[in-house]
Amino acid sequence: MDPHFLDELIAVLGADNVLTLPEDLLCYAYDAASDLPSTPPDVVVTPWDSTQVAAVVKLAAASKIPLYTRGAGTNLSGGTIPLRQGIVLSMLNMDKILEIDAENLTARVQAGTVIQSLLDAAEPYGLLYPPDPGTVKTATMGGSAAECSGGLRGLKYGVTKDYILGMEIVTADGDIISLGGKTVKNVSGYNLPQLFVGSEGTLGIITELLVKLVPIPEASQAMLAVFMDLDKAADAIRAIIARKIIPATLEIMDNITIRTVEDFKKIGLPVDAEAILLVEVDGIRGAVDQEAARVKEVLAECGATAIRVAADAAERDQLWEARRSALPALVRSRPTTILEDATVPRSKIPEMIRAIRAIAAKHQIQIGTFGHAGDGNLHPTILTDIQDADEMRRVRLAIDEIFATALELGGTLSGEHGIGLAKAGYMESQFGKPGMDLMKKIKRALDPDNILNPGKIFVDL
Amino acid sequence: MDPHFLDELIAVLGADNVLTLPEDLLCYAYDAASDLPSTPPDVVVTPWDSTQVAAVVKLAAASKIPLYTRGAGTNLSGGTIPLRQGIVLSMLNMDKILEIDAENLTARVQAGTVIQSLLDAAEPYGLLYPPDPGTVKTATMGGSAAECSGGLRGLKYGVTKDYILGMEIVTADGDIISLGGKTVKNVSGYNLPQLFVGSEGTLGIITELLVKLVPIPEASQAMLAVFMDLDKAADAIRAIIARKIIPATLEIMDNITIRTVEDFKKIGLPVDAEAILLVEVDGIRGAVDQEAARVKEVLAECGATAIRVAADAAERDQLWEARRSALPALVRSRPTTILEDATVPRSKIPEMIRAIRAIAAKHQIQIGTFGHAGDGNLHPTILTDIQDADEMRRVRLAIDEIFATALELGGTLSGEHGIGLAKAGYMESQFGKPGMDLMKKIKRALDPDNILNPGKIFVDL
Repeated sequence: MDPHFLDELIAVLGADNVLTLPEDLLCYAYDAASDLPSTPPDVVVTPWDSTQVAAVVKLAAASKIPLYTRGAGTNLSGGTIPLRQGIVLSMLNMDKILEIDAENLTARVQAGTVIQSLLDAAEPYGLLYPPDPGTVKTATMGGSAAECSGGLRGLKYGVTKDYILGMEIVTADGDIISLGGKTVKNVSGYNLPQLFVGSEGTLGIITELLVKLVPIPEASQAMLAVFMDLDKAADAIRAIIARKIIPATLEIMDNITIRTVEDFKKIGLPVDAEAILLVEVDGIRGAVDQEAARVKEVLAECGATAIRVAADAAERDQLWEARRSALPALVRSRPTTILEDATVPRSKIPEMIRAIRAIAAKHQIQIGTFGHAGDGNLHPTILTDIQDADEMRRVRLAIDEIFATALELGGTLSGEHGIGLAKAGYMESQFGKPGMDLMKKIKRALDPDNILNPGKIFVDL
Repeated sequence: MDPHFLDELIAVLGADNVLTLPEDLLCYAYDAASDLPSTPPDVVVTPWDSTQVAAVVKLAAASKIPLYTRGAGTNLSGGTIPLRQGIVLSMLNMDKILEIDAENLTARVQAGTVIQSLLDAAEPYGLLYPPDPGTVKTATMGGSAAECSGGLRGLKYGVTKDYILGMEIVTADGDIISLGGKTVKNVSGYNLPQLFVGSEGTLGIITELLVKLVPIPEASQAMLAVFMDLDKAADAIRAIIARKIIPATLEIMDNITIRTVEDFKKIGLPVDAEAILLVEVDGIRGAVDQEAARVKEVLAECGATAIRVAADAAERDQLWEARRSALPALVRSRPTTILEDATVPRSKIPEMIRAIRAIAAKHQIQIGTFGHAGDGNLHPTILTDIQDADEMRRVRLAIDEIFATALELGGTLSGEHGIGLAKAGYMESQFGKPGMDLMKKIKRALDPDNILNPGKIFVDL
C-alpha cells in the first residue's frame, strides 16, 4: 500500500488507529464463516467517531481503495472478509450507548456497541431489545444491522430490521446522513433505513443506530416435547399457531442433533426421538399461564410422547441446555462445521428436514438439523473436514441441493446469515437476471466505484 | 396525445380499458387531498394483470410519457394527481385475493384489492391484517403499500410496512420482478420490498402483495377518559407505557375537536375538557382483563375526571363514536379541510398540541387536533375556505410553522399521509441536500427517464 496513503490515514486517525503490522492484519483476514478463503487487508483503521469514518471514506474514494467495514466478525457468510485487500474499518472503538429513551421506547447507540451492552443498559428501565442472534455477547449492533441478524425470537418479535427506526450512515462519498427517526410512523421520503439494513456494508457505512425497545415480558413459560414421528412434531407446530398462540420461541432439533447432544452432554435426551420441540411463551402473567396450558394440551393432542414443563428458572435453564448445546455438540464431532440457514415457509419444515436427510444420505455426509421452527429458519449443520478434498466436493454438491430445495419450497437462500461471499454465487438462482439487475442499479447508484465491501452479494461486481 | 400511441395502448388492453373521454379523465384529475391543484391525465388505462401493466410501462418508457399509478385515490398528499398529464394506470381491476395461507399466516393479493376485501377473506380463518387507515372500505392494498399508510393500531401493531413480506413489481423498464417471500427471516440481497413500500409509485409499480396476517385478538376492552388538563392527559399516556402496557389504540382529541364533535353529534361530551383519551387493549382474555384494570388505575391516578369502560360491544361502539366523528364533524364546520399528519416522538405530544394552538392563534385560523397519541401521530386539522385568498395565505404560513415545529421536536413531516405533491417542498428541510441527493440517486437509478409519478416527493425532478 502506498506509504503516502498511510500517512494520510494517520493524519486523520493518529498512528495508534492505523494498523499495518502483519500480525495485526492477520486477525482481520477472516470471520466466523470458517470454510471460506481468508485474506489479510493492507491496513486496519479504528476510528472513534463518524467524522473520522467520513474522512477515511473520502480518502478511500479518492484512491478507489476497497473498504471493508467490520464489527465483531461473528457473521457466518464471509461478509467482513477483505477479499480484495484494501482497508478494514473496525468499528469496535465506536461503542457508546448514546441514549436510552424510556418514554419513547427507543435507544441510540454507536455502531460498534456490543448487543449485550445495550441489553444491560436497557434492563434497568425494564426494557428489552428483542433481536437475539446467538452471539449477543460479542456481535455489534452495526454488524447485526448490516447483516439483519435473526435468531431465536423471530416468530413473535421479528428480526433486527423490525427494530431499526433510524440510523446515521456515511455514504460512499463521505457524506454523513441521518435517516429515520423516533416515530414508528414515518413516511417522509424513501424508507432508507430499511434499505441499509441487511445491505452488508455494500451501500454505506452504518455509524449509529436508533432502535425500538419493548417492555421486558413480565412472565415466561418454557416446555420441551419429545416426538417419535417428525410429522407429529410438524402437526404440533401447525396446531399451536392454529390455536392462535404465537410463542416467543419455537425450536426444533432432529434425531442426529439429539443424538450428538446426548453423546456430548448426557442430559437424558431420548436418542430414538425423531424430533424435540422447545416452546416458550411470554407476556403478562395471566396470558402466559393461559397460553402455556393451551400449548401443553396441543402438544399432547399431537402425540408428544413426553412433555416437560419448567417449574422454575432452574428447570427452564435445563430445558434450554439441550437446545443451547446443539451447535457446540455438532461442532466438536468433526474438524469443520458448515452452518447453513436455508429458510422455508413454516408449513414446509417437515419436507425440508426430510429433503436434508435424503441429501445427506445421497452424498454420504453428516448433517444435523436444528433451528427456529416457528419461523421456518432451519440450520442444517454439515459436519465435515476441510482437509478432505473428496468429502468437501460432496459437501458442495449437498449445499447446492439444499439451496435449490429451499427455493423450490418457496423459501430463501439465507434466513439470517446473509449472502456475503458464501452465497453470492447462488443469488441469480433466487432473483433471476432482472432481480439482480435491480439490485446492481442500486449498488452502482450509491457506490459507483465499488469501494464498499466489494466482492460481496454480487459475484460480478 | 398521439393517436398512434393510443392505438398501441388499445392493442395491449382492448378499447374498453383505455379511457379518453373528458368526463372519464376528469374523475382521475384529483385525489382526497382537496386543497391541491387538479389536472386530468391524457388517458386512463385499466389493466387486468401484471403482463398488461408491464406492456403499458414499456410503451410509456419508449415514448417517455409520465405514468401515474392509482388505487382508490384516497391518499391525502396528492400522490396520485397526474401533475404532468400522461397516463393514469388505475389498478382497480386487479382486485383478486390470490391466497390466504392460514398455516404460514400470509395472504397474497393483487394490488387493486380493497383492504376490507382482504379483512373479509381472512376473517373466516380467524386472521387479521392489522393496518387500519381510516379508509379500509375504499383504499386498495397497493395504494396503501405505496403510501405506507398508518392508522389506528400503529403503537402495538405497527404500520403497513410492518406487514409487507413481499411483492411483485413492474420496473420502469417493464420487467416483472418478485421480491421477498413468505418467510419472516429473509436476508437474501437488499431489502427491496421495504424500499418500494412508501415510495409512492416513483420507483416501480406494485402489482401484487404478500402480507403477514395475525390471529384476531380473542378479546378487547375500550375505555374513554376525560382530562381537564392537557398535561395530565400526557402524563396518563406516559404512565400507561411506563406500566409496560402497549394498547392497541391510544387516541387523543383536543378541546376544539371535542367541542366540534359535541356540537355535531350531541353525545354528551364534556365541552370544557382539555383532552379526551380513548384507550383500547386487546389480546387473549386473561391478559386483556389484567391490562384493562391497570389502564383504568393509571387513568385515575393521572387525574382523569371521568372514566367510562365499555361493558359490551354496544358500549364500545358508543365510546368510539366520539373518535370516529372527529374528522366528519371538523369537515362540516368549514368549506375546506386540510388534514395534516405531522408526527412527533410520543413524549412530545403536549408540546406539539400547545404549539399548534399557538400557531392557530397567531395566524387567526381554526385548527382542531386529534390523532394517534400512542405513536405521536397527530392530525392538526385546519378548517378554512379555499376561496378566501387571505385566509389561505395565513393557512400556508401556519402549515410551514407546524412542519418546522414537528422537525424541531424530533419528528417527521409526514407520519402516514406521504409526501406526494403536498410536502415535496419541505423535504430538504428534513433531509438536507445530502439526504435528498441520496434519494435522487436511487430514483434516477431505477427510473432514469422519470416516467413514474413525476413531480412527487422531489420538487426538482
